[in-house]
Amino acid sequence: MFEVNPFDIDIGQYKVMLHQSDARQLGINFGDRVRVRTKGAAVTAILDVTSQMVEQGHIGIFNEAMKELKGAKTVDIMPAPKPASVAYIKKLMDNQKLTEDQIRAIVRDIVDNNLSEVELSAYLTASYIYNMDAQQTEWLTRAMIETGDRIYFDTHPVVDKHSIGGVPGNKVTMLVVPIVAAAGLLIPKTSSRAITGAGGTADLMEILAPVEFTADEIKELTETVGGVIAWGGATNIAPADDKLIKAEYALSIDPYSQMLASIMAKKGAVGAEAVVVDMPTGPGTKLATAEEARKLAKDLMDLGERLGIRVECAMTFGGSPVGRTVGPAVEIKEALAMLETGTGPNSLREKSLALAGILLEMGGMAVRGDGGRMAEEILTSGRAHKKLMEIIEAQGGDPNVKSSDIQIGEFRQDILSPATGYVVAFYNKRIIEIARLAGAPADKKAGVIIHKKMGEMVKKGEPLLTICSSSDWELECATKECALMDSGRQMPIVVEGMLLERYPRYTQI
Amino acid sequence: MFEVNPFDIDIGQYKVMLHQSDARQLGINFGDRVRVRTKGAAVTAILDVTSQMVEQGHIGIFNEAMKELKGAKTVDIMPAPKPASVAYIKKLMDNQKLTEDQIRAIVRDIVDNNLSEVELSAYLTASYIYNMDAQQTEWLTRAMIETGDRIYFDTHPVVDKHSIGGVPGNKVTMLVVPIVAAAGLLIPKTSSRAITGAGGTADLMEILAPVEFTADEIKELTETVGGVIAWGGATNIAPADDKLIKAEYALSIDPYSQMLASIMAKKGAVGAEAVVVDMPTGPGTKLATAEEARKLAKDLMDLGERLGIRVECAMTFGGSPVGRTVGPAVEIKEALAMLETGTGPNSLREKSLALAGILLEMGGMAVRGDGGRMAEEILTSGRAHKKLMEIIEAQGGDPNVKSSDIQIGEFRQDILSPATGYVVAFYNKRIIEIARLAGAPADKKAGVIIHKKMGEMVKKGEPLLTICSSSDWELECATKECALMDSGRQMPIVVEGMLLERYPRYTQI
Repeated sequence: MFEVNPFDIDIGQYKVMLHQSDARQLGINFGDRVRVRTKGAAVTAILDVTSQMVEQGHIGIFNEAMKELKGAKTVDIMPAPKPASVAYIKKLMDNQKLTEDQIRAIVRDIVDNNLSEVELSAYLTASYIYNMDAQQTEWLTRAMIETGDRIYFDTHPVVDKHSIGGVPGNKVTMLVVPIVAAAGLLIPKTSSRAITGAGGTADLMEILAPVEFTADEIKELTETVGGVIAWGGATNIAPADDKLIKAEYALSIDPYSQMLASIMAKKGAVGAEAVVVDMPTGPGTKLATAEEARKLAKDLMDLGERLGIRVECAMTFGGSPVGRTVGPAVEIKEALAMLETGTGPNSLREKSLALAGILLEMGGMAVRGDGGRMAEEILTSGRAHKKLMEIIEAQGGDPNVKSSDIQIGEFRQDILSPATGYVVAFYNKRIIEIARLAGAPADKKAGVIIHKKMGEMVKKGEPLLTICSSSDWELECATKECALMDSGRQMPIVVEGMLLERYPRYTQI
Repeated sequence: MFEVNPFDIDIGQYKVMLHQSDARQLGINFGDRVRVRTKGAAVTAILDVTSQMVEQGHIGIFNEAMKELKGAKTVDIMPAPKPASVAYIKKLMDNQKLTEDQIRAIVRDIVDNNLSEVELSAYLTASYIYNMDAQQTEWLTRAMIETGDRIYFDTHPVVDKHSIGGVPGNKVTMLVVPIVAAAGLLIPKTSSRAITGAGGTADLMEILAPVEFTADEIKELTETVGGVIAWGGATNIAPADDKLIKAEYALSIDPYSQMLASIMAKKGAVGAEAVVVDMPTGPGTKLATAEEARKLAKDLMDLGERLGIRVECAMTFGGSPVGRTVGPAVEIKEALAMLETGTGPNSLREKSLALAGILLEMGGMAVRGDGGRMAEEILTSGRAHKKLMEIIEAQGGDPNVKSSDIQIGEFRQDILSPATGYVVAFYNKRIIEIARLAGAPADKKAGVIIHKKMGEMVKKGEPLLTICSSSDWELECATKECALMDSGRQMPIVVEGMLLERYPRYTQI
């Protein structure tokens, strides 16, 4: 019988702490499982061992386990076996193949928070080092679908879009969804918020309407207006992914099979039958070469076939931002303006129409080769704009919003070209850094407007960029980051003929 | 400025928790580092993110970081880079070679608790999958030595002994240390407590004397009486190992290069010049085949050469317990009796004399081939017994202790042979399980006395084992574990001609 010390901390797991003498007495150690029982309640928890935090005869119990034990004052404990999935993770570490049941057990335990951080990290590290084969990746994807909410549509076809990411300003979803929905296809799009970027589609859409919906609400919205742009993180769709992303981020890894499974699980769970995958390719993106992009395309299409989902992939140019804006408000303003007028930056217009066109063809709305033209017609006719306004209204936003209503940061700074010439280098990552320093994505009004892109001519003293922010000191931070001749820093934009370094060094904008 | 919520939990790391909106505002995520500052104090901590535990504008700070911040009420925070070692761990995951400085940075951050559990686990998993080469293993060993306390002796030679473990009843250190110390060699032996076994050497020695000493005390004791038998866990010798063992245990892995480094770091740190390594080999041990043992021996000797430590390895029979006792009190009683009388079970006597003999030869006390004889002479003359009593006294124990004084568990049960015949199978792991069920190693008086070993003749009704314990119900548990015909359980001892299964099943001792 142990006296309970409640630890008022959400630790993300069923976790308890014993004095090391008591653990020794019970023959158990750090990371072992214990069955903790009280009258009418019990929980299996991960053990931590301490010499100071709890006295002998006491047990520290964190919030999650405490809830299951209904505030018990005393508990019995006994050693319990580790989840079977821990042994399967060991098999992965030994590069052995897992069965479907074993993969499902791992995913189930990830979703149920039954694995410790040490175990979860070992799973990801082994997954990173040893890719799964196609059969195992299929099982992994199915397990990720089955362990979360699913949407089954009565109307068809259901299409979806995914971007591999890695290119700034990629607001194409804001155009693709209304175009294909206006054509009569269903597109229940879940998007992410930015983690390391300047703004995810969910961050953008949130300026226009709420984005947090359950799977059931997404189904209803999609059936009502044809499309939705929701934040995936608010749903319980493929929830294993959210847990994995946390640890992947901490390790800066993106295990390949796990990435394939995570993409396709989210599509499979919402009932998508046809999916287009945008693959920004080029130096500075996630897909440095066309070869890598082709391999990924093949693997995604193979996985789709195994799951009964048609997949087409579009390799797009990722070396330069899409459109001329980076940051939630400036991006949504640009996207809205294009829907209102049918015109705007070519890089945004062409890419959006191409991706929408592929979906129109896959969904049977256009004959092969005619999708792009149809998408253009839907955009220029204003039908896409009308559809987005319907979607905004359905999601609870203002259907009369105009691009001119969108507020951007009141503190602004132009970055002027120090020379006359062509833009000969343009570094995406630096643009994202500058937008983040200005406050994006948390400050939705922060961002970068790009006046000159790769290959364009600029005169000395003309603006290359405009940075905007809601905060004067964040604007200053971001502006400093653009300083020429700042030692060790890569200029975001290089103009031919521009002085790259000068001695002695001094700072000049 | 954030308001501090102190979290009164020792979490083993500098750790803080922010509301997810604040983390987003700062552009940081789970696992990132933050610099936390208050007037006159600062600490770099690992970030966790929550939606419930702390409000916006507050920061949860765990004990370790709170101490550094001297009870601050408000703090400033700013993003900080991850330790460089995280990038080096990523290199390991990519199977790239690390430099000496990079390996040292990882070990330093392990010792300083600068790595999160996710990062530490990734290091171990990658180490498990990709072995380091000899050069890297040397650097790893040196880093483990340098990040802890070291002993430099003025007198020489200094020798040491290590066992790979995996065989029950292996109390040979209790004989080897007094024998070689009696011959005039210095042997500053640090030993472990049992984690998954029934009793480590430190658990045994603790019955006779205190075992918790600092490196300085170990040096002084060794210089005074020639030898010491201390608990390594109480020292700061190669402290990285203690942190790694925790996570290795949780994952049930023992990465090969890391094992080599951990063994040799402990020997290098105490200034050992010659080391004998006991390698119990055979089915059911850590080294299943002679081939594996030979590879390990070669790698240990190579590593020793790189470190300037002479290493010899002794492959020993690990298929059966050493001596006839398993558990702290019964083992120490057996070891003391052998020192008192010079006689006892052959498996214990021969092995102890062989290992001591190797050290006597390596230390220049005996010519090659004569060490075993000399060791035997020291044992039978009573000099080894006298030396152990000196060591016990120096460590603070009773130098007049006799084997007959050692108390074993008052609750005892004989396990009788159900048939007449030869013992044809003997399962070490089951013997350890039975000793643990009886209460070992926490209950020092719990254990198993083995009456019949592999190949010995037994008559029906004669005892095979005696189990002892301080607790009647633990004795009952352990006794049940020996039950014949218990479905799915492996009998610890099989006697030829004995009924292995019978239908219908029933339980009989």
